[in-house]
Amino acid sequence: MNDVQGFFYPRSATGRSSLIPAPPWSYSGDLLTVEYRTDPARVAELLPAPLTLAEDDPGAVAIIWADWQSCSSSREELLDPVRSQYKEAFVVVRCTFRGQTYSRCVYIWVDKDFAIGRGLHQGYPKKLGSIWQTRPHVFGHAAPQIAPGGVFGATLAAGDRRLAEAVLTLREESPTAGFVNGHPMAHHRVYPGIAAGAPDAFAELIESGASDFEGGQAWSGDAELRLFDSPTEELDRLPVEEIIGGYYRQVGVVWNGGRSLATLTDGVDR
Amino acid sequence: MNDVQGFFYPRSATGRSSLIPAPPWSYSGDLLTVEYRTDPARVAELLPAPLTLAEDDPGAVAIIWADWQSCSSSREELLDPVRSQYKEAFVVVRCTFRGQTYSRCVYIWVDKDFAIGRGLHQGYPKKLGSIWQTRPHVFGHAAPQIAPGGVFGATLAAGDRRLAEAVLTLREESPTAGFVNGHPMAHHRVYPGIAAGAPDAFAELIESGASDFEGGQAWSGDAELRLFDSPTEELDRLPVEEIIGGYYRQVGVVWNGGRSLATLTDGVDR
Amino acid sequence: MNDVQGFFYPRSATGRSSLIPAPPWSYSGDLLTVEYRTDPARVAELLPAPLTLAEDDPGAVAIIWADWQSCSSSREELLDPVRSQYKEAFVVVRCTFRGQTYSRCVYIWVDKDFAIGRGLHQGYPKKLGSIWQTRPHVFGHAAPQIAPGGVFGATLAAGDRRLAEAVLTLREESPTAGFVNGHPMAHHRVYPGIAAGAPDAFAELIESGASDFEGGQAWSGDAELRLFDSPTEELDRLPVEEIIGGYYRQVGVVWNGGRSLATLTDGVDR
Amino acid sequence: MNDVQGFFYPRSATGRSSLIPAPPWSYSGDLLTVEYRTDPARVAELLPAPLTLAEDDPGAVAIIWADWQSCSSSREELLDPVRSQYKEAFVVVRCTFRGQTYSRCVYIWVDKDFAIGRGLHQGYPKKLGSIWQTRPHVFGHAAPQIAPGGVFGATLAAGDRRLAEAVLTLREESPTAGFVNGHPMAHHRVYPGIAAGAPDAFAELIESGASDFEGGQAWSGDAELRLFDSPTEELDRLPVEEIIGGYYRQVGVVWNGGRSLATLTDGVDR
Repeated sequence: MNDVQGFFYPRSATGRSSLIPAPPWSYSGDLLTVEYRTDPARVAELLPAPLTLAEDDPGAVAIIWADWQSCSSSREELLDPVRSQYKEAFVVVRCTFRGQTYSRCVYIWVDKDFAIGRGLHQGYPKKLGSIWQTRPHVFGHAAPQIAPGGVFGATLAAGDRRLAEAVLTLREESPTAGFVNGHPMAHHRVYPGIAAGAPDAFAELIESGASDFEGGQAWSGDAELRLFDSPTEELDRLPVEEIIGGYYRQVGVVWNGGRSLATLTDGVDR
Repeated sequence: MNDVQGFFYPRSATGRSSLIPAPPWSYSGDLLTVEYRTDPARVAELLPAPLTLAEDDPGAVAIIWADWQSCSSSREELLDPVRSQYKEAFVVVRCTFRGQTYSRCVYIWVDKDFAIGRGLHQGYPKKLGSIWQTRPHVFGHAAPQIAPGGVFGATLAAGDRRLAEAVLTLREESPTAGFVNGHPMAHHRVYPGIAAGAPDAFAELIESGASDFEGGQAWSGDAELRLFDSPTEELDRLPVEEIIGGYYRQVGVVWNGGRSLATLTDGVDR
Repeated sequence: MNDVQGFFYPRSATGRSSLIPAPPWSYSGDLLTVEYRTDPARVAELLPAPLTLAEDDPGAVAIIWADWQSCSSSREELLDPVRSQYKEAFVVVRCTFRGQTYSRCVYIWVDKDFAIGRGLHQGYPKKLGSIWQTRPHVFGHAAPQIAPGGVFGATLAAGDRRLAEAVLTLREESPTAGFVNGHPMAHHRVYPGIAAGAPDAFAELIESGASDFEGGQAWSGDAELRLFDSPTEELDRLPVEEIIGGYYRQVGVVWNGGRSLATLTDGVDR
Repeated sequence: MNDVQGFFYPRSATGRSSLIPAPPWSYSGDLLTVEYRTDPARVAELLPAPLTLAEDDPGAVAIIWADWQSCSSSREELLDPVRSQYKEAFVVVRCTFRGQTYSRCVYIWVDKDFAIGRGLHQGYPKKLGSIWQTRPHVFGHAAPQIAPGGVFGATLAAGDRRLAEAVLTLREESPTAGFVNGHPMAHHRVYPGIAAGAPDAFAELIESGASDFEGGQAWSGDAELRLFDSPTEELDRLPVEEIIGGYYRQVGVVWNGGRSLATLTDGVDR
């Protein structure tokens, strides 16, 4: 009897081909966050039962750009950086499950396949996109500094259409980089049934968060955010009613698995 | 109680954001196939129990380049072709399950995210790659014809490394375009457990094939194939011992689901 | 004394590194054209003296999508098709020089560097873009046919913004595929002076056209065209006032140089 | 009489469409340099008359990876960073002209079209490539620090083939980041004649360098470098005979034009 190896597909004799190695996965990067309020009913639309709206500030949304370098425990990806660097933009809301508040990523775009693979495992609904955010640099010839007056832009496109763009002007040090993405994540992992029209073959609600986190000084500032429509996206169903704030922060993170909250056989809704 | 819509993630109130719409999915495209023999032990390595080697010609491998246009039943993707065109290269072997012969895709690279999403559903272990194959054209100024003497090249790269390249010179009409990819597909669909080190949370062996298929005249010819090594790929663990043949064929295909052969609870090995 | 080799940069001992080999260059491809009228004053804006508006239908504009396979006289690029296939979208107007009518490409986007290099030589003002057009295929499962009722879409994006999209529904065979791009091309080739604020160091008005051309049956049909704004593009300064027609045609072309019409020392305006 | 505007093509009524705005151009970025010795005859091959080998260490070569953010004097590109960020890898040798030592870029790859346009103006022979280099980050979870023991990788690919890869392990502060790229640049700007087989229509030898430069502390370390062959590139005609050193440095630069050293009419060789 043969047992193929590998954390993810494709599995092989050695496991070396796997799109992603087993966790832990480590990340170093910069986060640009804009938080705003939208109609809570639009947030509720994105919460499958039994998830419900967060009680406090239920219409709060965070859109986050992240410029990452990442690696597995071998750290070998760092020396072949086409395999370690990626960018992403994602939209987070909050929800309640069994009386606890969770963060939940409802939309996300990345620019590498290994990031899609990790997202599948973690329940992030990743698509490919083109994501850009201004980088700080020690020399200001063509870069802002992470300091008062530093101006950062961020854009997102997919399917050859621009979906979002933000501008953040830093004002001051901040005790936080926002609150919407600050809880453990409650995500679904779903496999539609293989037969035409069949219900989901697998559906699981999982919880996860960083197993290690280090954050630099957070900065807040004035933020502008524009969302655009697209035939394949629904970002503009979460329109900006009021900007809460804009934030910039450099972080180091480790992710090393989560735990199952409920599965299809527990009645998890698709 | 709220029920989100959408065949795949992300699910929303309308389902419009889903990375892929529900099947049926239709395809029009050109296939360039090179079939060869490798050491059957290397094929066996890629077959998780209870799959076993095909009895007849167990070391036969097909590497197939495909240049596709595809759409869902709405056909709307055809008018926004960034959403309908994609290229892929994939490696197919054969195996036996419960006395039946199946084809099985062991490696595959595509160049669009919707193709990754469809592959997840169908059990194709898709990664991103850069795939190119010579196109025939009615005017031969810079194109071969699908006719004796027509020469076609095909290349595959991933992670900024070239993985495979083939040259096919058409010789004559052929009754088939090869035999390795000619059976129903037996694929695994797997979700690793969310807890660190946990076994698979979901594993299913599924069978699927075209619900509709139309093929043009197949052509056979002389084929060359070179496979290159890479730290993240194992194509070169299936070295070419003997070329069986090279083929070119234009096809139209519809895929509309499959059926489950076994699940984790039936003892499907990871 | 050493003489480096190579048609274009970089020049080396062998010339092999040159971004493009010497002409002749051959092309096989499909052209989707939409012709329309805009305000002639907007066309005139794009014609440096001594070029003037065409007398007949001076506001006529063609926007053309082309899906190309191309090669040099060695034809070696055809077997490494990442070096031979590219797509482009370009905007053509007409002008008059010394009493002759010329076509002139005022904007163009391509998706490969060798196409940029060839454009530099030929005076096409090429930028990078993302260009897509629906492909016909013998099997209609996910493709139109070049026949009455065939519907083709075409899109253009650059800088992560969509710039143009067209839909063409074929109606009938047509004696032509439009008239705007039907003349020899009159293009400028310009090198700005290297010193800050200096005038052009080189400016030449050249004429060129196909040295060989073969075209299939042209088809005309109903066309829709939408142009979008962008901070770095001016397509929308040529708004559609009236659609003239839409066309589809497969062609084979050879380009093998042109001739100089005037140079800076002849008083060519920048 | 109409005078079109714009520093580069395409020129228009407003000049806004120009692929690149007029200098000055500003840059903030990180440079990873590997210097080595090759056979001086191979360097000489790349020097068109009247350029000759540098007298001192004539076989010295620098290959430099750069991760840039850049902008024009409006700085507007910084808020739409798809227009300001790019990566490049380039090969520099030294040469002598009229008794002066110059640096000269003989090969270069970039990943944006505006970088190609700026290179055309400056005489850098730019092609498109895929360039990656490890980034330092304040949090070491998935990043090195610019400090003793920091390990950085760098890779270059073009045409779906890997061309070069380097690994640099920082050891200590260094008074310089190498010497090969330390002189004013002597570059050719060339337009082949438009007629088939014609000699160059324009050829100019220009000199340029930074109009403003600020550099952080340079670091030196142990470097490995591997160069690979390709049918379209000649990097491997400059094989590594002996590593001189590896360097890392963060810099801020402004470029604002250069000066003409000689033109075709002065007898500049092609």
